[in-house]
Amino acid sequence: MKAPILTPLAASLPSTVPFVGPETQERAIGRPFEARLGANESLFGPSPRAIAAMAAAAADVWMYGDPELQALKAALAAHHGCRPENIVVGEGIDGLLGYLVRLLIGPGDSVVTSLGAYPTFNFHVTGFGGVLHRLPYLGDHEDPQALIAAAHQHRPKLLYISNPDNPMGSHHPAETILAMRDALPEGTLMILDEAYIDLAPKGTAPVIAPDDPRVIRFRTFSKGYGMAGLRVGYGIAAPELAQAFDKLRNHFGVGRIAQAGALAALADQEWLGQVQARVAKGRDRLAEIAQANGAVALPSATNFVTMDLGRDGDFARATLRALTDRGVFVRMPGVAPLDRCLRVSVGDDAALDVFAERLPQALAAASAALQATGG
Amino acid sequence: MKAPILTPLAASLPSTVPFVGPETQERAIGRPFEARLGANESLFGPSPRAIAAMAAAAADVWMYGDPELQALKAALAAHHGCRPENIVVGEGIDGLLGYLVRLLIGPGDSVVTSLGAYPTFNFHVTGFGGVLHRLPYLGDHEDPQALIAAAHQHRPKLLYISNPDNPMGSHHPAETILAMRDALPEGTLMILDEAYIDLAPKGTAPVIAPDDPRVIRFRTFSKGYGMAGLRVGYGIAAPELAQAFDKLRNHFGVGRIAQAGALAALADQEWLGQVQARVAKGRDRLAEIAQANGAVALPSATNFVTMDLGRDGDFARATLRALTDRGVFVRMPGVAPLDRCLRVSVGDDAALDVFAERLPQALAAASAALQATGG
Repeated sequence: MKAPILTPLAASLPSTVPFVGPETQERAIGRPFEARLGANESLFGPSPRAIAAMAAAAADVWMYGDPELQALKAALAAHHGCRPENIVVGEGIDGLLGYLVRLLIGPGDSVVTSLGAYPTFNFHVTGFGGVLHRLPYLGDHEDPQALIAAAHQHRPKLLYISNPDNPMGSHHPAETILAMRDALPEGTLMILDEAYIDLAPKGTAPVIAPDDPRVIRFRTFSKGYGMAGLRVGYGIAAPELAQAFDKLRNHFGVGRIAQAGALAALADQEWLGQVQARVAKGRDRLAEIAQANGAVALPSATNFVTMDLGRDGDFARATLRALTDRGVFVRMPGVAPLDRCLRVSVGDDAALDVFAERLPQALAAASAALQATGG
Repeated sequence: MKAPILTPLAASLPSTVPFVGPETQERAIGRPFEARLGANESLFGPSPRAIAAMAAAAADVWMYGDPELQALKAALAAHHGCRPENIVVGEGIDGLLGYLVRLLIGPGDSVVTSLGAYPTFNFHVTGFGGVLHRLPYLGDHEDPQALIAAAHQHRPKLLYISNPDNPMGSHHPAETILAMRDALPEGTLMILDEAYIDLAPKGTAPVIAPDDPRVIRFRTFSKGYGMAGLRVGYGIAAPELAQAFDKLRNHFGVGRIAQAGALAALADQEWLGQVQARVAKGRDRLAEIAQANGAVALPSATNFVTMDLGRDGDFARATLRALTDRGVFVRMPGVAPLDRCLRVSVGDDAALDVFAERLPQALAAASAALQATGG
């Protein structure tokens, strides 16, 4: 009666993974957060029309969703001026990244990304045995030149860039992304993660022919559309690649309520416009709060503001802990030198009021704690 | 500018897959089905309390779901008399089967299942390079002795059995499943797919210690609980195996509405009891319809009735096509000799009325069509 024997690859993977949700932290501190500003969720919520569509779909959820997602793919194709064959829909960008890595990456295959960029992508690459080459940020931006140079050195099958970037909130203009694409070595597919593009300045999203085999771009309903808990993301790619996902995806994985909610949200661009305006105001407010506390808000093209606290990672981590203890959920970049910062999602007035009140307390507590330990 | 290069395994997989949803058929016939009886969905719907919980969660869907699913796992553990550590929740049993196969099966690893059993399991095994050994059914049941003999011959890492069975609706008593478990060779994990157990006679579900490392059992909210489009399934296994899923699962894949709906559905066992009674009545009605048409309803422990039409697969396929043309969605087993049957989900009175009206027409049309082609 032995335990089942995992594959060597699965056995090599860590059994603890860094996906601590705020609920886990709430259980640890014994009460709910008063300000939930850590996961770049949209406190402005989804479109009321999307909420109504999801509520209506709840009664119909005895039916499987359409495994070919025909209505949603048609709407997305119309929205983007491409064909449904260019679209793949999945269980969030997270799910799609997993499928894409599985399609392309086997043990030992190279992948290029930035040191400190989206950890869930790394989780998938490692999970399929890929070898990560991680290039440092430059001036709090992912570094296009370094990424391209690494691509020519390592000839990776995948090169990942998010634009706008998470966790720094920075962005490159469309021309920079197009120049990267044009400089890719043969055989490298560029993943352009545009999760935050709905919150970015005009001119950030490049015009890329949907059939271009060099790029797959990912979008989501989790950020601007305010439906992180629904789990709907999509990719735009050449039909050959988009359809290759059918080889291995969970065909019924995007369910009936998810499809209905995404379809209604996409149709309500006016709501998205309102969210964009409120996010812009929220960013300004967060920048004021940062300034009032001697921190520097980095320019943000996203629904969060990354704040340089002006000291090191230990200080930022102590500040984050002090905020947690005070009922404020935020996150921070995981690696130096990015980890001198806190990453604070834009919230509604109530949540930002709480943050404004607790941040000075937390900074003072962090300073005191580090002094006490000689830090 | 070449297309991205898939892994050799991914390249070897077919790009067309057999997951045709009723929506695709509806587009082909140009109108909606009048009776949706093909996917073993529950026409009786989810608990009204679950519908209310999902509708309420729709407004909160801007928040990610708890990636550790603490509330749902605690409720499931209480329901089953095990610990939360014994539970893994995923995007339907489909999603969990994919993760399990990925954990255990690498290229060339053996897997034992039945010829004609759940195709999505085979899809995952093939998708990770496993080698399927498929044993014929015996008397319209999965054949425990043959499966165990094959396990001793091929020493597979996984042995799959569904109880009750899909697509035949048959079942084995708990003692037979326990005897299979006790006869497993060392190193073989038994997958006990209990998707339909909520509709089975008492005494079908074996008592298995949750920590038993020889078995992982799967349950779902798709069938008895009536939430196929929600995508929530779960496994019960030894903690070491249940927690191994954390190595590679989509941690946020079971979203906020899904968790809320499942939690509320589980709490409404009275609704499940009503569904069980209605399913039992529906099975009787389907048996009457079969008998009235010269077919034989196989005994069913599920929410569908498999009807032996008494001829061959060509005839059953022709009947299925004729039903489709007449606005009735049903499915049928894919391989001989099981494919002499139609598989008809239990429906409400309205759907069964439509089926009762159209089945004789379809049988006549199938006979005529086969006579015309000399079949």
